[in-house]
Amino acid sequence: MLAELRGLNEECGIFAVWGHEDAAKITYYGLHSLQHRGQEGTGIITSDGHELSGHKGEGLVAEVFNEQVLSKMNGSAAIGHVRYATAGGGGYENVQPLLFHSQTGSMALAHNGNLVNANLIKSILEQQGSIFQTSSDTEVLAHLIRRNSGWLMKDRVKSALKQIEGAFAYVILTENELIVALDPQGLRPLSLGRLGDAYVAASETCAFDAVGAEFIRDVLPGELLIINEDGLYSEFFAESRDEALCTMEYIYFSRPDSSLNGINVHTARKNLGKRLAMEAGIDADVVTAVPDSGVSTAIGYAEASGIPYELGLIKNRYVGRTFIQPSQALREQGVKMKLSPVRGVVEGKRVIMVDDSIVRGTTSRRIVSMLKAAGALEVHVVISSPPIKHPCFYGIDTSKKEELIAHSRSTEEIRRLIGADSLTFLSTEGMLEAIGRPNTSKNCGQCLACFTGEYPTELYPDSLQYYYQK
Amino acid sequence: MLAELRGLNEECGIFAVWGHEDAAKITYYGLHSLQHRGQEGTGIITSDGHELSGHKGEGLVAEVFNEQVLSKMNGSAAIGHVRYATAGGGGYENVQPLLFHSQTGSMALAHNGNLVNANLIKSILEQQGSIFQTSSDTEVLAHLIRRNSGWLMKDRVKSALKQIEGAFAYVILTENELIVALDPQGLRPLSLGRLGDAYVAASETCAFDAVGAEFIRDVLPGELLIINEDGLYSEFFAESRDEALCTMEYIYFSRPDSSLNGINVHTARKNLGKRLAMEAGIDADVVTAVPDSGVSTAIGYAEASGIPYELGLIKNRYVGRTFIQPSQALREQGVKMKLSPVRGVVEGKRVIMVDDSIVRGTTSRRIVSMLKAAGALEVHVVISSPPIKHPCFYGIDTSKKEELIAHSRSTEEIRRLIGADSLTFLSTEGMLEAIGRPNTSKNCGQCLACFTGEYPTELYPDSLQYYYQK
Amino acid sequence: MLAELRGLNEECGIFAVWGHEDAAKITYYGLHSLQHRGQEGTGIITSDGHELSGHKGEGLVAEVFNEQVLSKMNGSAAIGHVRYATAGGGGYENVQPLLFHSQTGSMALAHNGNLVNANLIKSILEQQGSIFQTSSDTEVLAHLIRRNSGWLMKDRVKSALKQIEGAFAYVILTENELIVALDPQGLRPLSLGRLGDAYVAASETCAFDAVGAEFIRDVLPGELLIINEDGLYSEFFAESRDEALCTMEYIYFSRPDSSLNGINVHTARKNLGKRLAMEAGIDADVVTAVPDSGVSTAIGYAEASGIPYELGLIKNRYVGRTFIQPSQALREQGVKMKLSPVRGVVEGKRVIMVDDSIVRGTTSRRIVSMLKAAGALEVHVVISSPPIKHPCFYGIDTSKKEELIAHSRSTEEIRRLIGADSLTFLSTEGMLEAIGRPNTSKNCGQCLACFTGEYPTELYPDSLQYYYQK
Amino acid sequence: MLAELRGLNEECGIFAVWGHEDAAKITYYGLHSLQHRGQEGTGIITSDGHELSGHKGEGLVAEVFNEQVLSKMNGSAAIGHVRYATAGGGGYENVQPLLFHSQTGSMALAHNGNLVNANLIKSILEQQGSIFQTSSDTEVLAHLIRRNSGWLMKDRVKSALKQIEGAFAYVILTENELIVALDPQGLRPLSLGRLGDAYVAASETCAFDAVGAEFIRDVLPGELLIINEDGLYSEFFAESRDEALCTMEYIYFSRPDSSLNGINVHTARKNLGKRLAMEAGIDADVVTAVPDSGVSTAIGYAEASGIPYELGLIKNRYVGRTFIQPSQALREQGVKMKLSPVRGVVEGKRVIMVDDSIVRGTTSRRIVSMLKAAGALEVHVVISSPPIKHPCFYGIDTSKKEELIAHSRSTEEIRRLIGADSLTFLSTEGMLEAIGRPNTSKNCGQCLACFTGEYPTELYPDSLQYYYQK
Repeated sequence: MLAELRGLNEECGIFAVWGHEDAAKITYYGLHSLQHRGQEGTGIITSDGHELSGHKGEGLVAEVFNEQVLSKMNGSAAIGHVRYATAGGGGYENVQPLLFHSQTGSMALAHNGNLVNANLIKSILEQQGSIFQTSSDTEVLAHLIRRNSGWLMKDRVKSALKQIEGAFAYVILTENELIVALDPQGLRPLSLGRLGDAYVAASETCAFDAVGAEFIRDVLPGELLIINEDGLYSEFFAESRDEALCTMEYIYFSRPDSSLNGINVHTARKNLGKRLAMEAGIDADVVTAVPDSGVSTAIGYAEASGIPYELGLIKNRYVGRTFIQPSQALREQGVKMKLSPVRGVVEGKRVIMVDDSIVRGTTSRRIVSMLKAAGALEVHVVISSPPIKHPCFYGIDTSKKEELIAHSRSTEEIRRLIGADSLTFLSTEGMLEAIGRPNTSKNCGQCLACFTGEYPTELYPDSLQYYYQK
Repeated sequence: MLAELRGLNEECGIFAVWGHEDAAKITYYGLHSLQHRGQEGTGIITSDGHELSGHKGEGLVAEVFNEQVLSKMNGSAAIGHVRYATAGGGGYENVQPLLFHSQTGSMALAHNGNLVNANLIKSILEQQGSIFQTSSDTEVLAHLIRRNSGWLMKDRVKSALKQIEGAFAYVILTENELIVALDPQGLRPLSLGRLGDAYVAASETCAFDAVGAEFIRDVLPGELLIINEDGLYSEFFAESRDEALCTMEYIYFSRPDSSLNGINVHTARKNLGKRLAMEAGIDADVVTAVPDSGVSTAIGYAEASGIPYELGLIKNRYVGRTFIQPSQALREQGVKMKLSPVRGVVEGKRVIMVDDSIVRGTTSRRIVSMLKAAGALEVHVVISSPPIKHPCFYGIDTSKKEELIAHSRSTEEIRRLIGADSLTFLSTEGMLEAIGRPNTSKNCGQCLACFTGEYPTELYPDSLQYYYQK
Repeated sequence: MLAELRGLNEECGIFAVWGHEDAAKITYYGLHSLQHRGQEGTGIITSDGHELSGHKGEGLVAEVFNEQVLSKMNGSAAIGHVRYATAGGGGYENVQPLLFHSQTGSMALAHNGNLVNANLIKSILEQQGSIFQTSSDTEVLAHLIRRNSGWLMKDRVKSALKQIEGAFAYVILTENELIVALDPQGLRPLSLGRLGDAYVAASETCAFDAVGAEFIRDVLPGELLIINEDGLYSEFFAESRDEALCTMEYIYFSRPDSSLNGINVHTARKNLGKRLAMEAGIDADVVTAVPDSGVSTAIGYAEASGIPYELGLIKNRYVGRTFIQPSQALREQGVKMKLSPVRGVVEGKRVIMVDDSIVRGTTSRRIVSMLKAAGALEVHVVISSPPIKHPCFYGIDTSKKEELIAHSRSTEEIRRLIGADSLTFLSTEGMLEAIGRPNTSKNCGQCLACFTGEYPTELYPDSLQYYYQK
Repeated sequence: MLAELRGLNEECGIFAVWGHEDAAKITYYGLHSLQHRGQEGTGIITSDGHELSGHKGEGLVAEVFNEQVLSKMNGSAAIGHVRYATAGGGGYENVQPLLFHSQTGSMALAHNGNLVNANLIKSILEQQGSIFQTSSDTEVLAHLIRRNSGWLMKDRVKSALKQIEGAFAYVILTENELIVALDPQGLRPLSLGRLGDAYVAASETCAFDAVGAEFIRDVLPGELLIINEDGLYSEFFAESRDEALCTMEYIYFSRPDSSLNGINVHTARKNLGKRLAMEAGIDADVVTAVPDSGVSTAIGYAEASGIPYELGLIKNRYVGRTFIQPSQALREQGVKMKLSPVRGVVEGKRVIMVDDSIVRGTTSRRIVSMLKAAGALEVHVVISSPPIKHPCFYGIDTSKKEELIAHSRSTEEIRRLIGADSLTFLSTEGMLEAIGRPNTSKNCGQCLACFTGEYPTELYPDSLQYYYQK
């Protein structure tokens, strides 16, 4: 399951609002609905037209902010961020939005994604005397904006955006302007909405529902939106290239109630499950999901196959960051922490276990063995994505040392390693059809790099070293 | 939904272990799996054979305990508790287990349930000079145990248990004995298990799975278990009366992976859903659940009716105790906090909304209106229990001022109040058959008081005043 | 220095106010000025005429209370407490005031002192079925009050006070009455004041200055004050016995700006220093104090001897409860935490080091050696009290295992052990004259038990065991 | 008293150690002894020879660090900082040391002082594309170091130091070097010491005593110390100019046990008091100090005048950052928080009140009135420094809006405003002689700018604007 990678990726969530008297609170509720995209840190910066100020901290939205803090955050514009820690780059300094003051004005930035040429740019800027205080890609853009000349902020931003490459969705706030930008491949999701007279932007549409806003449209690849007192103005900073939205957003990241490209994620997952049932064609007694991402898929699988869907695995909702891990001895005695099999459901049954993906395989092996210990006669693992064979450089960094189990192994070899009675990966074609992006032309509009190795952007030495070290 | 009542009830979870070198840690993991039964406070008391000591606090298990605290809790026996706050009785003092020292020995108690004659006993004891420091029923039992004579602890406990009436599951720990007791009607669930050479007891069997223990059997109504270095010894403190297990444990409280009376809760709920589909016979496009308790039921409903099950409502998992409630103005603009409708699923559809119960009706009305605002054409509310017409005195206290919507209203009147297109309550017979306790004889073994008004115990003035004020 | 004993004693501070609209806040400021009497925990209980409520916690007054908590504490009467932890009896449960609810009314109590027959009474009450939840003497009085019959609260309190023996200053609050009581020997200080129309009572008069109240008079030994809407009413619960105020209150405990028996503590200490200078007659270059209690004394010593007073030892004000103790290795390298010698002041000088007392001697030895390491040629230790040869049972419990260095040693032996060039204890006569309580008659009005072994009350087995184990 | 200014100044403390296996702990204890120089935030950065890492936070040293955090801070070199919040520049970002990573190495800086050309440099650097993330002067130096070319770190630092002007004491740590630098006027104190084989540097010598280190010498004005595995190397980055140590370090800032220029601060203050007694020649009954800075001075005054020194004012040690300020109403009723007069000492007496300085005069007025309310017949205010007539630009920023009471008023006018019976300021000559820096030549080695308006450095527009707005 892709959750194995969490802790390694930089998947985050961003939110922005312009023109609402309760900008900070709206952002609070918006970020709260994006909490599944990052739980390590969060921040909000507001503008009252004269200055930028804000608050940030490590932890959940509901932990970092309280009534007192929020009530002091005035202003009708705000941007916010929820963040996942990267391997080495945790800590308060890296919590976004980043806020930069200069004698000519201030600027706050929040970023979802990963640049592939960040280190290259950093080297050049450092040689020119720049100092970086965070390990965040976001700071790279800030330096580029500052160093570019141009009378208007939007022109400096535009020049800067042309210099960076990779996956990025940005919201940038100055005293009197909100700028929203998406990378030329549209690798990360980013949508625009309307809340009364105010504009909102968010990583996922579920944030619009959370604040009572209406969806207008997705931000387009290579698009730059400038929102200020004159209204909303759109232009493109890049000649549009082929769209390549991260497919894992459908498979795993996004909330079921969000829509990507006009397709509801829950529905897409049900379709993945239906297609998977067709492709797998396994005879069994119950279908069960690895919660939470596998649930919609499993429901679809059950519907198409006629095999009943059951809660064969229960997830404990109260596992927090401070939970005490069981010792090895206790673990061997059977102490469980996060997932429990439901003996009354799986005992004596042939079980189909639906998951989103297999990365390292260790979690899959643990769950299969848990189900068998609870009495499952057979465990058939069905996966709603093709094998992940290649690293991602766009925000889901696989570390160098942790092998992708599918990188150099056949499905049969993986099956044996995880101890399943059968293992089925969804085909690439099946996946694309299920999410409504059939591969009829050369370009399906989705990034498939982790399955196929075909990357939609240039790669740079600091990206490539991951690849060749494997 | 019954969750409306939370904050008003005293539903809790208890856990005990005897004879395991990691008694405190085992209790920690056990309580963690019972966290759904109470999130306001928790505590663990251990015995090392010479003295009792422990730690408790307000908050979640993972918040109250840390490695350092747990590592200092020695001893091979422990009891623990997770607690729901009552209306007026929150605060550190009321967090259990309660620990009482005297010059002749110590005693710790943890309790799940509610006594109906607690105030009566308190009055008598106070007239005799006793002082109560908590508002908890648990302290009443402690005083009775201390005042009863008898050479053996178990005899004093037995005498004390005969004096109290109501719903109660107790675990009591002294320096050298663990005592487990259940009320004569077995109103609260309580099970016995084995973990290697150690004994464990817990409110639900999911705690056994969490710690790798094996289920032995349910504790019987009116039974007293004494566990000490001589082993396990059982006797009855009450001539067994008719069993009357709280039916809401199946409908709402228990975790889907627990078993009550040998019946898996998830399976029971699916059966409730199937029966409900038969009884309701509604034509619609999608079945959706009010999460979490409605999920299993909705799956069963979908299976039986052939109408597809969809995620029409999403629950935000990150709503914590410190979350900032939206103001009325923001709420009216559509800011949501806990439940979001999935527009992509319900828009233009006739929706069947499955919930466990209706108490005050306000939540149901809000969800119906949310679904309609998200584009649902019709909303048919189906409820997996009969109308709740009578207050509960056994741990789910309905407050005096909050009317039960069904107390004096017809189903049609309720339907109109919640704005649904149709409303179906499951019949009592249907419910009992679905959970495998058919009402063939006078006694089905379940408490049905909140539906029928027939209470399985005596009632006392302080219970009855609730009733007559309504 | 007596501070060595801290952590072992039960010296505390109490405050009460009746008839002020800001009762909780007044108590907050009063307790804050008594913070030197106890830093481990604090609490305030208020009465609004109908019910008692409050807040307490572990830590300093400024840590436990905040604006929000205080602003919710309504009522025109309040009692409060600051507490020192006892060896084994720390923890939230023992933080005072203790609050007891019964069906006929509530009662809160706060206590400064130590009962000598508490365990005896506890045994008897436990045999009669009482349960004690704290290890505090305060709970003993609560039980006695409850068990005594009598129509009026004051009569029940009076009967209860007659049953206890030892050192005690109590403030007791009910819904409509404030009761203030002092033990028959007046072992602990307790004063009465007036703040506009309101009455206040406090352990030390500095609390009156802190809240702008006027001192009326000290509460008398064996006196009971009842304050309610009818005004202030005084009676005696004990036939007055010989007054025996703890002499250490002058020497060490009380704040320099308080007055005891009409004598300002700073002035008393200066007089102690002057007398000590006369008795010691040492030739030296500088006089320095062990801060803080030795400061006034050293000033007096310098004035009388003509030897200049210097800051030879500096106390770090920022040593808090959470400070990290230096390891043994670092300590040996000279890492200091709390007291630093001032090399520029003591180097090459003959130093007179003024301290309040010597208990175990370890601290004195450390300071002498610190001064010598900083270059002092000679260190003459002068102590403003006689040798402490006997344990105290009235609130300054010396533990069994920690020997009093003076119990069985001559002054010369002690001098050698602490490494001083000379050692002078003040004579008992000198001490009494200096504090204005000359020993002209048999009874000077002061308790001298720790110097002479003559205890002003009966002793009981649980007190005496300390003595005989030494 | 100068403490009025606190909250407005940037007075801080720095500490560094090179070559000690417990570098982080040594720094912890060193900073703890410098806590009086700043209580708002603190941090420590260590180097293990390969990388820099650390921890910082808002609050006291003992609050920000705990055993767990410290035990993870490996490395044999460390720098640390305690900080005072500036008016607008509080917050986590501004807590020092600042840590800067680049692809060619890392660098940490901590700073005590204030630059007078910081804003000028910032403007220039921003025009060249630099981004500043803090409002701290320290970041200015970091940018200059990075932008200067030079093969060796020390050469880049040297060039950078030549560009800045004002008061500065810096400690700079890289992976393999510790650099210590003092401004050309030596405006801030900075000393060098030895701890076994390790070197230490600190703002005050009291930190050497705290960690068991030996004082070697003061760092010289314009000196740059480089400490690395080759040993200690000294050079000057500035042609030495006239020394001008801040005189307020003697009067107010430094701890009594520190030595500045070989003069013990307590002794210097006593001498100030003796000289003040001579100059004032007032007849009175008692001498009392405004604690803490006035204590040594008052002792000297008493010694020289023969008038007894008494504790006429008591400071509450437990006033923390979270203390609840009394409302205006309570303040008028006499509620006191920080300072209490000792009625028993001042009643009916003619009191000499010794303080270090008068800035705005409001505090002096409050104390005089407090003493009179406590019964003082006369209050004679004597001040151990001349009138402060000019703003300071070197770390003790007087804000624009808060007038210096002495700027345009005679001593008599001030006396009337503060309600004293007499007011004496020490003469400049008297002050310099007392601290052993007699004004025999043009240059006494002390900065007297706040008294005379003669500033030892150039001033720049952003400094001067303070001046002309007054």
